Amino acid sequence: MTPAPLPMPGPVPVPRSRAECEALDAADPLSRLRSEFALPDGVIYLDGNSLGALPRRTSDRMRRTIEDEWGRDLIRSWNSAGWWELPCTLGDRLAPLLGAGPGEVVICDSTSVNLFKTMVAALRLRPGRRVIVSDPDAFPTDLYIADGVAGLLGAEHRRAGVAGLGEALDDQVAAVVLSHVDYRTGRLHDMATITEQVHRHGALMIWDLCHSAGALPIALDGCGVDFAVGCTYKYLNGGPGAPAFIYAARRHLEAVRQPLTGWWGHATPFAFDDEYVPAPGIRSFLVGSAPILGCAALEASLQIWEQVDPAALRAKSLALTGLFIESGDRLGLELATPREPQARGSQVAFRHPDGYPIVQALIGRGVIGDFRTPDIMRFGFAPLYLSHRDVWDAAQTLADVLRDESWRDERYSVRATVT
Amino acid sequence: MTPAPLPMPGPVPVPRSRAECEALDAADPLSRLRSEFALPDGVIYLDGNSLGALPRRTSDRMRRTIEDEWGRDLIRSWNSAGWWELPCTLGDRLAPLLGAGPGEVVICDSTSVNLFKTMVAALRLRPGRRVIVSDPDAFPTDLYIADGVAGLLGAEHRRAGVAGLGEALDDQVAAVVLSHVDYRTGRLHDMATITEQVHRHGALMIWDLCHSAGALPIALDGCGVDFAVGCTYKYLNGGPGAPAFIYAARRHLEAVRQPLTGWWGHATPFAFDDEYVPAPGIRSFLVGSAPILGCAALEASLQIWEQVDPAALRAKSLALTGLFIESGDRLGLELATPREPQARGSQVAFRHPDGYPIVQALIGRGVIGDFRTPDIMRFGFAPLYLSHRDVWDAAQTLADVLRDESWRDERYSVRATVT
Repeated sequence: MTPAPLPMPGPVPVPRSRAECEALDAADPLSRLRSEFALPDGVIYLDGNSLGALPRRTSDRMRRTIEDEWGRDLIRSWNSAGWWELPCTLGDRLAPLLGAGPGEVVICDSTSVNLFKTMVAALRLRPGRRVIVSDPDAFPTDLYIADGVAGLLGAEHRRAGVAGLGEALDDQVAAVVLSHVDYRTGRLHDMATITEQVHRHGALMIWDLCHSAGALPIALDGCGVDFAVGCTYKYLNGGPGAPAFIYAARRHLEAVRQPLTGWWGHATPFAFDDEYVPAPGIRSFLVGSAPILGCAALEASLQIWEQVDPAALRAKSLALTGLFIESGDRLGLELATPREPQARGSQVAFRHPDGYPIVQALIGRGVIGDFRTPDIMRFGFAPLYLSHRDVWDAAQTLADVLRDESWRDERYSVRATVT
Repeated sequence: MTPAPLPMPGPVPVPRSRAECEALDAADPLSRLRSEFALPDGVIYLDGNSLGALPRRTSDRMRRTIEDEWGRDLIRSWNSAGWWELPCTLGDRLAPLLGAGPGEVVICDSTSVNLFKTMVAALRLRPGRRVIVSDPDAFPTDLYIADGVAGLLGAEHRRAGVAGLGEALDDQVAAVVLSHVDYRTGRLHDMATITEQVHRHGALMIWDLCHSAGALPIALDGCGVDFAVGCTYKYLNGGPGAPAFIYAARRHLEAVRQPLTGWWGHATPFAFDDEYVPAPGIRSFLVGSAPILGCAALEASLQIWEQVDPAALRAKSLALTGLFIESGDRLGLELATPREPQARGSQVAFRHPDGYPIVQALIGRGVIGDFRTPDIMRFGFAPLYLSHRDVWDAAQTLADVLRDESWRDERYSVRATVT
């Protein structure tokens, strides 16, 4: 195993004025991608880490899929429009962004369902071991699914963060599930080192890439990762509730057995055999009929990524987050995100006891971020459609809201269902 | 339990000419719904039991969801556009078609994933019982998932059809899974009687409604059914790979525990609690983020159903299938579908050793049906968009193809990936 570390970022210049931001934008190789997105006027969208923006080409693609493929060609489109192959062709299209090879990634189900598949699959690959370790700071669905698997199979779900992993790892651990980027703080975990540590104890490594796919270069193959899951509706811009993905390292594809043995994962589904025979390769992770409308939207958004240089993505992400961190420093905000560039993803989080109404007041002024309990103001920086000037302006608005205390207006404390 | 049987069809008039068909169409209360669908010219679509036709209103609805809700309102649409509630609001909208009440149906995942949830949930509701019975003639995914559950939990999957149910039912059976309408023959099973038989042995009844939802009136509550699953992309016209549904009888909602414990099924998902607490009611069957594009398309198609009288739906379905059966009789075809109206769904199947090329030749002439291994020519009759005249014309084309033997052209024997 030769882990391929992330390209180490060079010194990140922090602009000192709006004009300097505009100069950086003029030199930005990704700036022309802004026109690929249909963002509304008057909005600076710092929530692409929750729901990515709409790619302009998605509208056309959806019209074609709905009116031509479904409406006109009807059932024939399963063959003629390549619907049947979409989970695999989209997986192959996504693979380079994850540092994966062809045939290692497939699009299907939700992140939660895919976590279930990988956890059970890992337990089966490590018979005699009955423990799944996950991070108490993980996005809750990772914990809930691990509890569900443990309850169903009489296994143990052991909670340990990255710092406590050394203690948690013993010869009973079948798999460790960790978030590559922490959904609250934006901390980026060291995929190569942690995967190696887990392997030294004979366990398998499952990475949750929800907050890193499309946010920074990833090297699943290079780091020797076993399984990975993630969603496509954040930095990948697949749309609300877009289908998720699953990665299984090539070396596992022959032996792996996931538990949701639906007909789409069968070797010959249209033979309508009595007995389940898993399809060879990554296709065995499929369960039921692919959500074609969601897949079509995702295909449109993935086309944009073919124009993206991973190093430029990372450099711009660090420049944008660095700028916002420094702005927060000047406002005296408590930073929850690691200050070291190599330890953060593409988001910035500040802790504030009044974080909820402050974020609402910002949204009221067109700067859209979000709040995560108990006190996290969270801002995502999607390098494909945000400029340095956007970040400068957002920081100004944040300064205004804090200075004039407009967030104290009681309407900003009304909690929405979805935060 | 007071089973509410299907309305018993009266005598079905079989037209003797195209003019008689047109007279029936003129008197058909459902004929005005044809204009709700965007079917291509020159096609008679008898495959709505595989992929339903495109409702015209779906295109507009998708444009609104994509451009306004996603593109313009972005993350705010989870609250403002009701995205968060869609799985439940759509479930309630679908419920009347299934004979279910509000809060008993939810839209989520695929039929296969939902089968997994209900089978495990049923085993948990019957501790001490370790057998799941399913029909060897069921659509294969039902068998595959039952095998998967049995393998995962050390349970037994016992295969028995409706005729052999008496023998298969013993005090070890936790649940019986059956298709309401057989996907090949179109045989309609007696939901009330079978459910009662299963209950007498202390087992739970799970119905797979893929081939009956939207094809005929269903009375889940009236028949005392425990669980049901099904897809929405056949007679319900939700679109390719549209999200599936799950039904749980109200009496089970408090105790039931499904195994895929994702955050969308949590009582308070945005509290980001460490521990999984299932949401009260049917919402606990949710797992991950709802596929909003698929849900939006489904919502558009379900609006049409508000205009449909269930008795008229059933009467027309039987008239159309009766007419096609009689046409097949005249052609000397072997009928695989029950001749008695009360024992069939909304499809007609003929057995023919050359069924595959015959169906392909029909498709070549604009009459779209499908083939199911080993020898089934399968034709679905969606009463919302097919007329008596369509069926007359389709029967004429079938007669032409059989008479001139054009199906012997070798291009019609080339097997497609998806059949």
